Amino acid sequence: MLDVTAFGEALLRLSVPAGVRLDEAATLDVYSGGAEANVIAALARLGWRGGYVTALPDSATGRRALGGLRAAGADLSRILWRDSGRVGLYYVEHAAPPRGTAVIYDRRDSCAAQLAPADVDWDYLLGARLLHVTGITPALSESCRALTAEAITRARQKGIAVSFDVNYRVRLWTADAARQALWPLMRGVDVLFCKADDARLVFGLAGEPETVIAALAGQTGAPWVIMTRGEAGALAWDSGARALHRAEALPVAILDRIGAGDAFAAGVLHGWLHGADLPRCLRYGVTLAALKLSQYGDSVSTNRAELDSLVAGQGGALLR
Amino acid sequence: MLDVTAFGEALLRLSVPAGVRLDEAATLDVYSGGAEANVIAALARLGWRGGYVTALPDSATGRRALGGLRAAGADLSRILWRDSGRVGLYYVEHAAPPRGTAVIYDRRDSCAAQLAPADVDWDYLLGARLLHVTGITPALSESCRALTAEAITRARQKGIAVSFDVNYRVRLWTADAARQALWPLMRGVDVLFCKADDARLVFGLAGEPETVIAALAGQTGAPWVIMTRGEAGALAWDSGARALHRAEALPVAILDRIGAGDAFAAGVLHGWLHGADLPRCLRYGVTLAALKLSQYGDSVSTNRAELDSLVAGQGGALLR
Amino acid sequence: MLDVTAFGEALLRLSVPAGVRLDEAATLDVYSGGAEANVIAALARLGWRGGYVTALPDSATGRRALGGLRAAGADLSRILWRDSGRVGLYYVEHAAPPRGTAVIYDRRDSCAAQLAPADVDWDYLLGARLLHVTGITPALSESCRALTAEAITRARQKGIAVSFDVNYRVRLWTADAARQALWPLMRGVDVLFCKADDARLVFGLAGEPETVIAALAGQTGAPWVIMTRGEAGALAWDSGARALHRAEALPVAILDRIGAGDAFAAGVLHGWLHGADLPRCLRYGVTLAALKLSQYGDSVSTNRAELDSLVAGQGGALLR
Amino acid sequence: MLDVTAFGEALLRLSVPAGVRLDEAATLDVYSGGAEANVIAALARLGWRGGYVTALPDSATGRRALGGLRAAGADLSRILWRDSGRVGLYYVEHAAPPRGTAVIYDRRDSCAAQLAPADVDWDYLLGARLLHVTGITPALSESCRALTAEAITRARQKGIAVSFDVNYRVRLWTADAARQALWPLMRGVDVLFCKADDARLVFGLAGEPETVIAALAGQTGAPWVIMTRGEAGALAWDSGARALHRAEALPVAILDRIGAGDAFAAGVLHGWLHGADLPRCLRYGVTLAALKLSQYGDSVSTNRAELDSLVAGQGGALLR
Amino acid sequence: MLDVTAFGEALLRLSVPAGVRLDEAATLDVYSGGAEANVIAALARLGWRGGYVTALPDSATGRRALGGLRAAGADLSRILWRDSGRVGLYYVEHAAPPRGTAVIYDRRDSCAAQLAPADVDWDYLLGARLLHVTGITPALSESCRALTAEAITRARQKGIAVSFDVNYRVRLWTADAARQALWPLMRGVDVLFCKADDARLVFGLAGEPETVIAALAGQTGAPWVIMTRGEAGALAWDSGARALHRAEALPVAILDRIGAGDAFAAGVLHGWLHGADLPRCLRYGVTLAALKLSQYGDSVSTNRAELDSLVAGQGGALLR
Amino acid sequence: MLDVTAFGEALLRLSVPAGVRLDEAATLDVYSGGAEANVIAALARLGWRGGYVTALPDSATGRRALGGLRAAGADLSRILWRDSGRVGLYYVEHAAPPRGTAVIYDRRDSCAAQLAPADVDWDYLLGARLLHVTGITPALSESCRALTAEAITRARQKGIAVSFDVNYRVRLWTADAARQALWPLMRGVDVLFCKADDARLVFGLAGEPETVIAALAGQTGAPWVIMTRGEAGALAWDSGARALHRAEALPVAILDRIGAGDAFAAGVLHGWLHGADLPRCLRYGVTLAALKLSQYGDSVSTNRAELDSLVAGQGGALLR
Repeated sequence: MLDVTAFGEALLRLSVPAGVRLDEAATLDVYSGGAEANVIAALARLGWRGGYVTALPDSATGRRALGGLRAAGADLSRILWRDSGRVGLYYVEHAAPPRGTAVIYDRRDSCAAQLAPADVDWDYLLGARLLHVTGITPALSESCRALTAEAITRARQKGIAVSFDVNYRVRLWTADAARQALWPLMRGVDVLFCKADDARLVFGLAGEPETVIAALAGQTGAPWVIMTRGEAGALAWDSGARALHRAEALPVAILDRIGAGDAFAAGVLHGWLHGADLPRCLRYGVTLAALKLSQYGDSVSTNRAELDSLVAGQGGALLR
Repeated sequence: MLDVTAFGEALLRLSVPAGVRLDEAATLDVYSGGAEANVIAALARLGWRGGYVTALPDSATGRRALGGLRAAGADLSRILWRDSGRVGLYYVEHAAPPRGTAVIYDRRDSCAAQLAPADVDWDYLLGARLLHVTGITPALSESCRALTAEAITRARQKGIAVSFDVNYRVRLWTADAARQALWPLMRGVDVLFCKADDARLVFGLAGEPETVIAALAGQTGAPWVIMTRGEAGALAWDSGARALHRAEALPVAILDRIGAGDAFAAGVLHGWLHGADLPRCLRYGVTLAALKLSQYGDSVSTNRAELDSLVAGQGGALLR
Repeated sequence: MLDVTAFGEALLRLSVPAGVRLDEAATLDVYSGGAEANVIAALARLGWRGGYVTALPDSATGRRALGGLRAAGADLSRILWRDSGRVGLYYVEHAAPPRGTAVIYDRRDSCAAQLAPADVDWDYLLGARLLHVTGITPALSESCRALTAEAITRARQKGIAVSFDVNYRVRLWTADAARQALWPLMRGVDVLFCKADDARLVFGLAGEPETVIAALAGQTGAPWVIMTRGEAGALAWDSGARALHRAEALPVAILDRIGAGDAFAAGVLHGWLHGADLPRCLRYGVTLAALKLSQYGDSVSTNRAELDSLVAGQGGALLR
Repeated sequence: MLDVTAFGEALLRLSVPAGVRLDEAATLDVYSGGAEANVIAALARLGWRGGYVTALPDSATGRRALGGLRAAGADLSRILWRDSGRVGLYYVEHAAPPRGTAVIYDRRDSCAAQLAPADVDWDYLLGARLLHVTGITPALSESCRALTAEAITRARQKGIAVSFDVNYRVRLWTADAARQALWPLMRGVDVLFCKADDARLVFGLAGEPETVIAALAGQTGAPWVIMTRGEAGALAWDSGARALHRAEALPVAILDRIGAGDAFAAGVLHGWLHGADLPRCLRYGVTLAALKLSQYGDSVSTNRAELDSLVAGQGGALLR
Repeated sequence: MLDVTAFGEALLRLSVPAGVRLDEAATLDVYSGGAEANVIAALARLGWRGGYVTALPDSATGRRALGGLRAAGADLSRILWRDSGRVGLYYVEHAAPPRGTAVIYDRRDSCAAQLAPADVDWDYLLGARLLHVTGITPALSESCRALTAEAITRARQKGIAVSFDVNYRVRLWTADAARQALWPLMRGVDVLFCKADDARLVFGLAGEPETVIAALAGQTGAPWVIMTRGEAGALAWDSGARALHRAEALPVAILDRIGAGDAFAAGVLHGWLHGADLPRCLRYGVTLAALKLSQYGDSVSTNRAELDSLVAGQGGALLR
Repeated sequence: MLDVTAFGEALLRLSVPAGVRLDEAATLDVYSGGAEANVIAALARLGWRGGYVTALPDSATGRRALGGLRAAGADLSRILWRDSGRVGLYYVEHAAPPRGTAVIYDRRDSCAAQLAPADVDWDYLLGARLLHVTGITPALSESCRALTAEAITRARQKGIAVSFDVNYRVRLWTADAARQALWPLMRGVDVLFCKADDARLVFGLAGEPETVIAALAGQTGAPWVIMTRGEAGALAWDSGARALHRAEALPVAILDRIGAGDAFAAGVLHGWLHGADLPRCLRYGVTLAALKLSQYGDSVSTNRAELDSLVAGQGGALLR
């Protein structure tokens, strides 16, 4: 029995350090990526039994794409190894202002984009307390859209909680297409994550954060809605208690922006799995996000003792 | 006016050093690859004005794929920059015995694979004394096959010399498909390069090297046919003089096998551009191939003074 | 249910590359080590469910010492995490002749050296078809000696097969002490591994290899006795069939000597788990040993497809 | 026909990363340097045909000194390759406060310092719309001083526009010597660049920036005078319109200070070549300077699309 | 005749760069550490003849632990080389907020911890004008405590000045144990260094800095008492003149926190050896501390010319 | 009192690894070089008190050039630090066949080349049992030639033994110039080292090795003459005993050729300082040379225990 599962696309990330241009890079650092994989990896490092489903070619690059999950101790027994096909990959050029961090995707036609409902061992995927889903997978292909819909439907039928992170990707689909696909998927999920920017761009929800988050909760009926606002921190709406909670972003020297949203979601879900209340979940979220920003790689590397000490405010001193 | 031109697919090469498995690589070394590009880069480093045509996305990775040619000083004024699409890439795992060097291709649907005859500025491509063509490009797509055929036809019409390197790639097409596509292309080229292994696998020409090379010359009518045999050196047939020449492979400590065939071809063509006789061309070829094997990267890096001194047998001493 | 288990000391390995002296090293490469861990990691990479038991401090260095096993996908659910104590470590200075590779141990008083029979979850450790034991663990401490003895006794009582690798370490104990401790442990194991050098140094068995291996079989009653002889290959005695088998060492360019014996053992045990016959087991052994010598790190990194292709003699060609 | 040309000294730059002292460096990063070369490289990356003239030994280090220009695609067909002589080089120790970045020159008696008017192919150097000159070259030697004077005179005779960057180097000559040599050269140039510090140190022009820049314009008659003031931004005087323009420096996390002034000049000249007005030229200048500060190496690496998007204020967001 | 001597434990430091977790580190940077060694190394770099006494195994790691002192030119002629035993070591995980820099000690039972009074060549250790002692050595073992006491007693008998840096290490002993051991040692030293935090934690001296420092001076009778307060700068009490001096911390971009306190002490002692007055000594202290924070490694690397120029406020400009 | 002294030019060595061309190097490895410095460094590592005299600029690069000697523990108290001037440097491109290792000098007009007899503290330089001199120093300048002559003359007057290594450098002077300068210097030295190649090129002594070495002994009157013949080993002539001794070169995997001759000389002189007989001195020589070839850097890094064990033939086994 697992605690949490997810499915999606595992990616190779190839990145150049700050100060070097990708146009002229002589070496690239390799990391494992993929939004859902990042969440499962973080939760596995925090001691939860996490399972992950994707399709990959049975090759060295396919195996490399799972390195992060494997190092985290996630369960990979249901990976669908294909005889051929490609691994999605993306390039990252870390940048200091005035440039922003740049991402170049090369993920079309990956094995994962061909995932379809019939591929999945549903007993495995739904053999957990929580299923984590993102809005990236339905953007990959029609079969992935069908897979996402079926997973959410089956989870609700079976009484498995579902968390959903909107994660709009402008390079994968238009806001229109995303809106049409995502609204139905989001109805009735248990924990909903949405960036303030995505609420505006995809769902046309602008204005005061309180109004936006209430609208998201109203439209989806999600018991918990969490809205991240980058350096402005995060906001959470508890539909049952009709209560709004806030958490400030932690001060952090940013080394690598990629995966901070996934780390935030992992933090909230870590609290959820624990049975923590929403304010504590938010604190876990902003803490994991800050940790991620201070580390290279897509998935945050930490452990329960460190997280607890940071949440208790004891992180900064040099003890020896 | 250029000396030599070529067209084909420029690739990104990502490689791990000997002793590290790609499955677990933390960094990858980046090089520019592509068989025709390697030949043009080598010739440009030797002082010839070389032009190269391909299609690439107008992106950092697209620009990176040309890094080797740019550093060599080749003319890149006719690169076809596309608004979207991908750069073909491949992974290399250098290996020591008992493993062999492993290559994983990820080059499907690249911008280059969509090249077609109408894309090319023929005045540019045929504005040289020599056009270098390989059997890789027709393996990429039907439009690339058409492009290759048209280039050879137009070159012969215009009186431009054509060199052709068979370069069979088992991961791109079957031997049957290659044979059917390549025989017509090879008829009438001026310099033909073919590995002994390819002659057997693709054209079913086995037996004594002398017989095989004669058969290749007979079937294609090529004035010069050069057959490489790895560590067994190279063989060349001068159809006009009906003379067979041989060159031993140079002793070499191999660091990187990729591109040795291209370096060999560049050596022979360097001689051809000079007006050297076939035996001297062969010596240039085996010397450049050995140099390449002793260097990391796909295209051999040298200069005319070094090449001349090595061909003259003065390479090894440490002078100071 | 697992396929194979082991217990022992997981170590950090810190090494300098060939050509650099440890006295002046500016960086050290970090690997996970430990003879039993290496065997379990190799078998896990080959698809077997492997479990490993050790004691480590619950710290970053403790977690790092398991990195190799985690990346291989071994089961680490029964690691004994201690509140304090140290991780054993060792330094390696790879060397080219005339120097030999040098090892400096710093492993005294590690958490693992304090392991005792009462620490172990016996249902877990004996919940497999095969228990792998080495002669290093009894050299660590008296409690480790007791643990080793109890593990072998319990395994035989429960009908679990036991493999035993003598692995004499001159820096841990004298040959006398080793002989007295090891003879009783080796009686009745199912697969016995012993270097020819160890047979001579520890057990005083010198002379023709055939004689030595027969003496080992006679004294221990082990059904299979395998004697490795470095570059001279390996010898195996099948006590049931009273048959002697030999395997040549594969030609290999050595990059890293550490762990070759463990890779060899893993190869033989891979065959054993498969139900392969002894000659085939030997071939797996020499192949994994050669692979290991060509890779950096303590545990061999491969997969079933690669191993099968190498054993079938198809490893060396560059296919593309 | 080229767009812009320059001549000067191409240097090797050897640098240590922040946090490491040159006294104890184990490795040095290699870059190509030289003020004029940096400007030409930046303009070539922006799509202009740039030509560069210098003298270098025909050796590996000589070729390496041109690596930046070659990668940028500049025209190097008129480099004067010498049979002997040395490449100027300099060492950089990047530093964090309280230390400042340190530069150690080792450039005496380089091939470039021996350049003289008779060496130059004037048709080539003046075969462009713009000739860029700096006050470093006349500091190298008397023959270089003569060469600089002749180049400016000939350019004006031929109606080629001249840009001049004062670039006072205290380690090459005294302020007195610089003043005497530079005043005559600066008279009548079309675009004049001068640091506020140099105006004070070399020309004794202190006081309000507006006064200083007006004095520079008055003394030289230059239509455009641009004065950079480090973090205080830049000031430009349009002599024709008698108008003063200002541009703020962009906020930037500085990684490498070397070459920022050259990037600024390249930005202004990029605008000039385009026919942009002075305020837009200034914006190009401060943007390229900021980009340079965020990159390692002497010459700024960018392209027209990126520059346009940054000037349009769209640089910072992470799009994916 | 030496200028300054010290004794203590020389350590190996193994560290990972910012952004990488020690749990997953693939490489570690190696430095030499040890508080007293850092002070002697800094003073040796500033031109003083410094001698250092410790015990180390006669091995590559033992020699490596002295690399920093050797590079600094310290006298190492009285190192006690042991036939066996271990080198103390510690791991550092540099971190950006929200994590703090983490230190993991692995220094128990080192050769240095077994140092005792009888080991020392007292003529050598007391053959200098100044003996530097820290509160770390008495924390290592009882014999080290005895050694420290005897050294201070003998120094006072012989009229050698003693400086003492409290340097409380919570991971080595309790505050209670430290207080009992340290008070007697501190009585009568000539220069006393104590962090404000240590004054509170170990000696229960809280409140206004002026009160605390006066209490330290009162209890110990030390002519000079210097209290460091991290980013709040340093405070010094001149018991003879009954005068209080202050120095601000210099603004600095911190790269490596380890060793800043030792650099500070070295700065003050550099002034003392010169005969500088206390305010100037303080300035040397805060300058060396800031330099250290901007450099990787445990001991600050500088020279007299650089220090003088920084103290004179001329450090920041880029001169060329 | 020192054991051995030397004077000469300390150089910076910048090198690229095998497989990378200097033309395109992105990083260079930094080492300290200089033939006499290498000998002193090796002897200091073997426990001898070695002193070295040179002139260097008082700069970071000047200090870096002494890094190897400092790390070895040599006495550097008489280095002549200059206010200006340059450090000689050279580039090394390690190469695998067919290329040879390439060296590019950039050492003209260094501070060391301006050394003259009046610069030297003769009491220091001659305050040892042995003075080591090479034929490189007289090649640097006339003042260096005078210095060398005076040093040898004074040493003989004072009864200090002199060793002399011919070390002809074709890039510094002609064979004619070398012969005229070196013959007088070599007369009466105590230990003479000469490569067989140098004997032929410089002194015109060709033919059987026995004849050549006898001629060298006859012409110079040196008690010991040692002739190295690369892979053919070394030959030594004992003039007193009129005995010829030989030593084979040790089998070795060559990583870095530079400095092997200096390591050989250091080995012989290590024996001489010990009072070992000539055959044993030769064994030390070939052993140190082989060690050097297996290490990166100019001066061999070893210690007495390792050397003794290698000379005793116990080097190769991996003990643990």
